[in-house]
Amino acid sequence: MLGKVLCTVLFVGAFPSPAEASQGHISVVLLGATGDLAKKYLWQGLFQLYMDQVSSGHSFTFHGAALAAPEPGQRLMFDMLKKLSCPPDEAPNRCAVLKDQFLKLSQYHQLKTAENYTALSREIETLLRQEGLKEAGRIFYFSVPPFAYTEIARHIDSSCRPPAGAWLRVVLEKPFGHDLRSAQQLAAELAGFFREEEMYRVDHYLGKQAVAHILPFRDQNRQFLDPIWNQHHVERVEVVLKETVDAKGRTSFYEQYGVIRDVVQNHLTEALMFLIMELPANVSSAQEVVQHKLQAFQSLWGLERSSAVLGQYQAYDSQVQEELQEARGHVSTTPTFAGVLIRSDSLRWEGVPFLLTSGKALDERVGYARVLFKNRAYCTQSGTLRDAGHSQCKPKQIIFHFGHGALNTPAVLVSRNLFQPVMPKDSWKEGEARSDLHVFGQPLSDFYVYSPVKERDAYSVLISHIYHGRKDFFITTENLLASWAFWTPLLDSISRQLPRLYPGGVENQHLLDFEMVSGGVAFTLAEPAELLNPSGQTPSDFRAIQSKFRQSPLVSAWAEELISQLASDMEEAAVRSVARSGQFHLALSGGSSPVVLFQRLARHHYGFPWKHTHIWLVDERCVPLTDSESNFLSLHRHLLQRVRVPYFNIHPMPVHLNRRLCVEEDGGTELYAKDIVALVANASFDLVLLGVGTDGHTASLFPRSENGLEGAPTVVLTESPVKPHQRMSLSLPLINRARQVFVLVLGKGKHDITTLLSRVGHEPRKWPISGVSPSSGQLVWYVDYEALLG
Amino acid sequence: MLGKVLCTVLFVGAFPSPAEASQGHISVVLLGATGDLAKKYLWQGLFQLYMDQVSSGHSFTFHGAALAAPEPGQRLMFDMLKKLSCPPDEAPNRCAVLKDQFLKLSQYHQLKTAENYTALSREIETLLRQEGLKEAGRIFYFSVPPFAYTEIARHIDSSCRPPAGAWLRVVLEKPFGHDLRSAQQLAAELAGFFREEEMYRVDHYLGKQAVAHILPFRDQNRQFLDPIWNQHHVERVEVVLKETVDAKGRTSFYEQYGVIRDVVQNHLTEALMFLIMELPANVSSAQEVVQHKLQAFQSLWGLERSSAVLGQYQAYDSQVQEELQEARGHVSTTPTFAGVLIRSDSLRWEGVPFLLTSGKALDERVGYARVLFKNRAYCTQSGTLRDAGHSQCKPKQIIFHFGHGALNTPAVLVSRNLFQPVMPKDSWKEGEARSDLHVFGQPLSDFYVYSPVKERDAYSVLISHIYHGRKDFFITTENLLASWAFWTPLLDSISRQLPRLYPGGVENQHLLDFEMVSGGVAFTLAEPAELLNPSGQTPSDFRAIQSKFRQSPLVSAWAEELISQLASDMEEAAVRSVARSGQFHLALSGGSSPVVLFQRLARHHYGFPWKHTHIWLVDERCVPLTDSESNFLSLHRHLLQRVRVPYFNIHPMPVHLNRRLCVEEDGGTELYAKDIVALVANASFDLVLLGVGTDGHTASLFPRSENGLEGAPTVVLTESPVKPHQRMSLSLPLINRARQVFVLVLGKGKHDITTLLSRVGHEPRKWPISGVSPSSGQLVWYVDYEALLG
Repeated sequence: MLGKVLCTVLFVGAFPSPAEASQGHISVVLLGATGDLAKKYLWQGLFQLYMDQVSSGHSFTFHGAALAAPEPGQRLMFDMLKKLSCPPDEAPNRCAVLKDQFLKLSQYHQLKTAENYTALSREIETLLRQEGLKEAGRIFYFSVPPFAYTEIARHIDSSCRPPAGAWLRVVLEKPFGHDLRSAQQLAAELAGFFREEEMYRVDHYLGKQAVAHILPFRDQNRQFLDPIWNQHHVERVEVVLKETVDAKGRTSFYEQYGVIRDVVQNHLTEALMFLIMELPANVSSAQEVVQHKLQAFQSLWGLERSSAVLGQYQAYDSQVQEELQEARGHVSTTPTFAGVLIRSDSLRWEGVPFLLTSGKALDERVGYARVLFKNRAYCTQSGTLRDAGHSQCKPKQIIFHFGHGALNTPAVLVSRNLFQPVMPKDSWKEGEARSDLHVFGQPLSDFYVYSPVKERDAYSVLISHIYHGRKDFFITTENLLASWAFWTPLLDSISRQLPRLYPGGVENQHLLDFEMVSGGVAFTLAEPAELLNPSGQTPSDFRAIQSKFRQSPLVSAWAEELISQLASDMEEAAVRSVARSGQFHLALSGGSSPVVLFQRLARHHYGFPWKHTHIWLVDERCVPLTDSESNFLSLHRHLLQRVRVPYFNIHPMPVHLNRRLCVEEDGGTELYAKDIVALVANASFDLVLLGVGTDGHTASLFPRSENGLEGAPTVVLTESPVKPHQRMSLSLPLINRARQVFVLVLGKGKHDITTLLSRVGHEPRKWPISGVSPSSGQLVWYVDYEALLG
Repeated sequence: MLGKVLCTVLFVGAFPSPAEASQGHISVVLLGATGDLAKKYLWQGLFQLYMDQVSSGHSFTFHGAALAAPEPGQRLMFDMLKKLSCPPDEAPNRCAVLKDQFLKLSQYHQLKTAENYTALSREIETLLRQEGLKEAGRIFYFSVPPFAYTEIARHIDSSCRPPAGAWLRVVLEKPFGHDLRSAQQLAAELAGFFREEEMYRVDHYLGKQAVAHILPFRDQNRQFLDPIWNQHHVERVEVVLKETVDAKGRTSFYEQYGVIRDVVQNHLTEALMFLIMELPANVSSAQEVVQHKLQAFQSLWGLERSSAVLGQYQAYDSQVQEELQEARGHVSTTPTFAGVLIRSDSLRWEGVPFLLTSGKALDERVGYARVLFKNRAYCTQSGTLRDAGHSQCKPKQIIFHFGHGALNTPAVLVSRNLFQPVMPKDSWKEGEARSDLHVFGQPLSDFYVYSPVKERDAYSVLISHIYHGRKDFFITTENLLASWAFWTPLLDSISRQLPRLYPGGVENQHLLDFEMVSGGVAFTLAEPAELLNPSGQTPSDFRAIQSKFRQSPLVSAWAEELISQLASDMEEAAVRSVARSGQFHLALSGGSSPVVLFQRLARHHYGFPWKHTHIWLVDERCVPLTDSESNFLSLHRHLLQRVRVPYFNIHPMPVHLNRRLCVEEDGGTELYAKDIVALVANASFDLVLLGVGTDGHTASLFPRSENGLEGAPTVVLTESPVKPHQRMSLSLPLINRARQVFVLVLGKGKHDITTLLSRVGHEPRKWPISGVSPSSGQLVWYVDYEALLG
C-alpha cells in the first residue's frame, strides 16, 4: 500500500518529480511511536520536517514502530497523527494537503522480533526498488526506555542497516545511564553496534532557541564580549530551571533519578558549557565545539558534598509511598531541588561562581542562563541621579531566557548599559521596551530584548538538525562521559544525605535560598525544626571521635570530616608557627590520600599563611618532577598552583640532578639535607604529614630495609617493593625531630594494618610506621572510620 | 592679673582646692589665636576641655598668641571668646560660671621675637611659683601657616620648654608638606626641636566620631567581621568626601594644593587605613595602631597615572585669574575632583578595589566610608519574594557616615541582613528605622543605625585627646611619610595633566562617573567636546613613534606609554607563540627598567598565557636567589608572585649550586645550557628582553671582555666592572638565535649611549649591545623620548 501512496505523492503537481527527487529517499523509523514523547513532540516534529523538506529533493516515508500488535498499534498511532496541528506560519491549505500526504506516507510496524526488523528492512528496499528511488538514509529514533536500547540496537545493526552509500542515523533519548559507570557501559554496548558519527544523543535543551543561540551570540558579539567575558568582569553565572509541577505520577522514574540526573547533569550543564567554554574559531564546527567543551569540563573543580544543597518537597515521600507501594515509614533521599556551585580553574573564570539551580514545586516556572557582570563603576552623583539613563552603576547582565516566566517566550536580554548586541535579523526580532514589566530586578526597558521571529519547538528544531546531519546539536559519547565523570562524585557523596524538606510553591519563602560558604554552598536559613525528618541522623551528626591510638591522640570521623578537621588543625599549626617564628616548615607526603587534603586546603583555607610557609617533601619517586608519577607534580597540581607560596619556599626533592635520576654521586640526598639544615631551625620541621602503607611503610621507608630507619637525621635513597622502585625519603630520625607529626590513614583497605598497628610495639624494621615517635614533638593519628572499624 | 584670677578660680566652691589640684597646672598656648580656625573651632574646643576637666585635679591657663600688638590682638581675641557657646548638654548656669572663669584664665600675648617667648615662659613660671602649683605640662597649638613652623619651633625649644618633670605637647596643623621630599624636610626640621612623642599632628578627621569609631567597631564586632572582612566577602571599599562649595576665596591656598593634597592624602587615606589595616590586638595602643597602619601602607600597589581620574569645576580658572591676578589665558591644572583606585597585595584584600573620591562643586555635601559586601547568595524565589525581609540577596554594607548628606549626623550603618553590631551604649544610640528615607540605595529601615549620644566637634574631641596624651588619634612622622611616599608618585605623574572640566552641582550628570579599567580608572563618558580646554595637547596625545633605529624597528614614546606598548606587544607575542607551539619561552633581563614593565604585565595583562609561559633569565648576579641584589628576586617580587606561572616553568639561573656561588666546577652554566636545549626547541627563545647599560653592555656581557660575545650559543660566567662583579649570562650567539629580541632603553641617563649607538656599526667588543642581531629573528627597539631625545 505504501508503495502506491509514495508514488502518488511524488507525482502531485507542486512536489518533486522523480528527477527532482534525485537526492534520494529517507526512511524515518520512530521506535516507541505510540508513547508519550511521540504523542507530545515527535510526530509533530516529523510532520514539521516533512513540511519543511518536502521540496528539498528528498522523498520520505515514516515508520512508526512499537511492541503492540499491528491492529491496535496502528489505531493508536493514527489517532495521534490525526491530531497533528498546522503551525501558524503555514498556509492552511498547503498544510492540509501536506498533512494528508504525511498520513499516507506513515505506516505502523510491530517491531518485536529479529524477523520483524528484517521484514521492515526488506519492505523499505522493495518499495524503493519499485519506485526506482535511490536510498539516501535511514533515521531510527529511539523513544523507548533505556533497558530496551541494546536489543533494538543489535537488531538495527544486524538487520536494518541501509545499503552502502546511504547513511544510518540513530537518535537516542536520555537517560544515558545514571552515573559514569552505567553511562560507560551503555556507551560501550552501543559502540558495538553503531559508529560514533551514526549516533545522535538528544538533549532537547540544545534545541531550545535561546540555548541554541548562546554560541552564535558569543560569536557574533565577540567585539563586545572579548574584553568582559572573564573573571575580571563577570560576577557570577546562573543557570536555572524552576518548575511549579511536582513529580506526582512520575515517581517510579523520578525516584531512580532525582533532580540532578533529570535536568542538571544534562540540560543545565550543557547550557553552562556553552557560556563558559572557550569560543571556537568556527562555532558551527561540531568537532571544534566538542573539543572546547571537553576542555571546559577539564577546567572545572571536582564537586564535593559541600558543592550542593539539596531539597525535597514535603509531599514527595507520600507520593512515592502511594505510587511505588512503599511502606508508610519509607524515607526517600531523592532530591527534587538542587543548588550547585561549580568553579573553574581556567584563567578566564577563576573565582567566578557558576550556580546551577533546579527544582520541582517551586514558586514559578522559568528557565534561563544569566551572566551577571560586576559593577566596576563609581557614580559620583547621589541617589536618583545615579541611576538615571544607562548609568554604569545599574546592574549589567546578559540573559538567555529559555522560556516561561514573566516573559513567557524564549528571549535574549542584554542590559542597555552594556552594549547593543548584533542579532541575526532573520531569526531574532527586537521586542518592545516595556517599563511596567520587571525581570531580573530591573524594568524590561533597561534591556535590549530579542525574541525569535518564529517560535519553534525544541524537538522540531532537533529533528531538522538530524535531517541536516548537524551533529553539533547532539551529545557525543566523549561529551556525555565527561559530564558524568564530573557529576558522579557528587551523586555518590550525597547518596545517603537527607535533603531539606520544603512545603512547595510560594510557601517555600527563603527556605531554599542558599549561600556560598568557604568553597561550597549551604542553605541560608537554619533548618526549621518542624520540617526535620524524624528518622534524621545524618552522617554529619557524627562528631569526630577523640581518643588514643598507640598511646597518641587519635582523631577519627568519616573521611570527609576527618580531612576537614585535619586541614583546620594544619592551618592552626601554621598560624601558631608563623606567630612564633615567622615561618612554617611543612613536610608533605606523596600518595593518594593527601590529594583530598590538598584540595581542601586550597579551596577552604583562605587564612592559611602560605606566604610564610615552606613546603618540603617527605619522600619522592625517582622520576622527573614533571612525570605523572612524581609526588611533587601531584602536590603542585592540587595545592601549589592554587595558593601563593613564594618560589623560594618550595623545596622539591632533588631526585633529578644533572639531568639523571637519583644517582648517588650527584649527592641529591646530601643537598636536600643541607638545605634543611640551612633553613629549618634545628632541622626540626614544624609539621610532618605522613601516611601508612598496607605493609606498614611510611614516607618511603619500607619494611625489611635498613635504610633510613636508624642513625643520623638525614635524607636517604631507598628501594620500594613496587614501581618506581627508587625513592628518596626523609629518614625516621629526621622525621622524629619534628615539632608535630600527623599521620593520615584513610579507607577500608587500611583496616588490617590499622588493627595490627593498634597491637604492636616499636618495631620499625617490620613496620616502619611504628618507629614514628617524635623525640620532643607531638604525634596525632587521623584515621577514618573505614580504616578504624573496617 | 592672671595670677589673681587663677587663685580666685581655684577656690570657687565646686572646683578643686589646692590639694585636689595636685595633678598640677597645664598651660595651653594657642598660636594663631585670632585666626579663622581658632575662631571657628579651637577656642570652643579649649573651652570644652576646660568644662570637661575643670574638676580633674589639673588647673589651667590659656594663652592666645599672635603677631599682632597686645592691644588690637587682645581685643580681637576677646571678641571671639565672648561668642563661645554653651553646649546643649551642659547646664546653662554651670556653663555661664565656667565661661566667665575661662575668660579670666585666658590672656593674649604678642609672640614675635625670641624675647616674647622667653617672657611668656617666665610669666608662666612666676605665676605657678606664686600660686604654689606644680607644672604638669604645656600645650602649644600651632594654628599658623607652615612656613612659620620652624621659627616658632625653635623659639619654643630654646625658650619655652617646661621644667624637668613636666611635659611638652606641640600640636601641628596640616599641611605637613606638599610631597614626600618637603614633608621629609619639614619633619627633619621639627625633629631638631621636638621629640616624636612631643608632637601631635592633627588630622581633624581622626576626631570625627564616625572615623574615630572605625577601629573600636572592628574590635568590638570581631566575631561578626572576622569571617567576612576579606577579599572573599568584600566587593569594594569607598571613602568619599563630596562638597557642594567650591574654592572661591581660597584659591591662593587651593592652587598650591588641589584636592588630593587637601583631603585625599590625609583625611580619606587615614579613614581607609582604619578600614583595611590588620586589627591590632589592642586597638587603643597608639604604637600597635601605627605599626599596623604602616604595614597596610606597605601592602598597597604603587599609584600610577592611570590610578586616578581628575576633574576641575569650570569656574575655577576664572576664580584663580581673579584672585591671583593671573593673565586671562592662564590655565590651571589643579584638580578640584579626584577619583582614585587603590589596591592592596595583602592576602586579605587582594583584588578588592578601594575607591577614594572627593571633589568640590558636586551635587551634595557628604562624607562616608562604605564597605560593600558581595552577594554570595542565590535566592530561589522570584522578584518581590526574593527581596522580602532580611534576604541575603539585598545589598549588604557597613557605612561609617562622617556627617552631612541625607542623614545629617555622624552615624554607623550596618545592613540588617549582615548582623546586629555591638555598639558602646554610653556613646552610640540606636536610631529609628525610617523606611521613607533612602540612603545608599536602600531604605534606612534596612539598616541598624547608630548615632552618637552626644554629637561632638572633631576639634573638641582632639583637644581632649591631646590633654589625655592619646597619641593614637594623631599622625606620627612615620605615618605621615608613609602616606606621602604613597601619594607622591601619583602627584608627580599628574602634574602636567589637564583635569576634565565639569560644570558643577547636579549639572555634572554622569560626567564624573568613572570605571575600573584594566588596573586603573577612567571616566565612563567620553569628554564632551564643548568642555574641552582649547589649549589641550596633553602628553597622552603623543602617539608612539614608529621608525627605525640601527636598521631595526623603533618604538618610541614617553616612558609610561612605551612600557604599556611593550607589554601589549609581549602579550601578543606570547599568545601567538602559545597558539603555534603550546608554549612561550621568555628570557628576561635584570636591572631597574624592567621593573615597571613587570608591574604593568602583572596588573594589566590578564590575558597573558602565563600557564604556558616558561620564564628564563638573560643574566644573573652571583648572589643567592633570595639576596636583594638577585635579578630573580626582583623578577619574583614584581612579576612571578602576582601571576600563575607553573613552578616547573620557572628557570632561575643556577648561580648557587652546592651552596656556593658561581664556582666553575659546579657546572652551573653547562646545566642551564642543557636545560635550555632540553626545553626550548632549537634553543631559540620566543622572546628575549634586553636592556642597555650606559657603557653599552647588555645582558651581563660587558665591553672589553671576550666572554660570551662569540662562539657557541651557550651560557657564560662574566665579570662586571661594578659590584657584584661575578655574573652569569646568556651569550650573544644564544641571544641571537631568538625569534624576537626586544631592547628596552629608558631615561635621560641613556641618551648619550643611545646617540652613540645610532651611529656605530657592529662592534660588540666595544659595545656588546651592538652585537645583538638575531640571525633569523626580529629585533625591535623600545626607546623612550628621554633616552632618544635627551
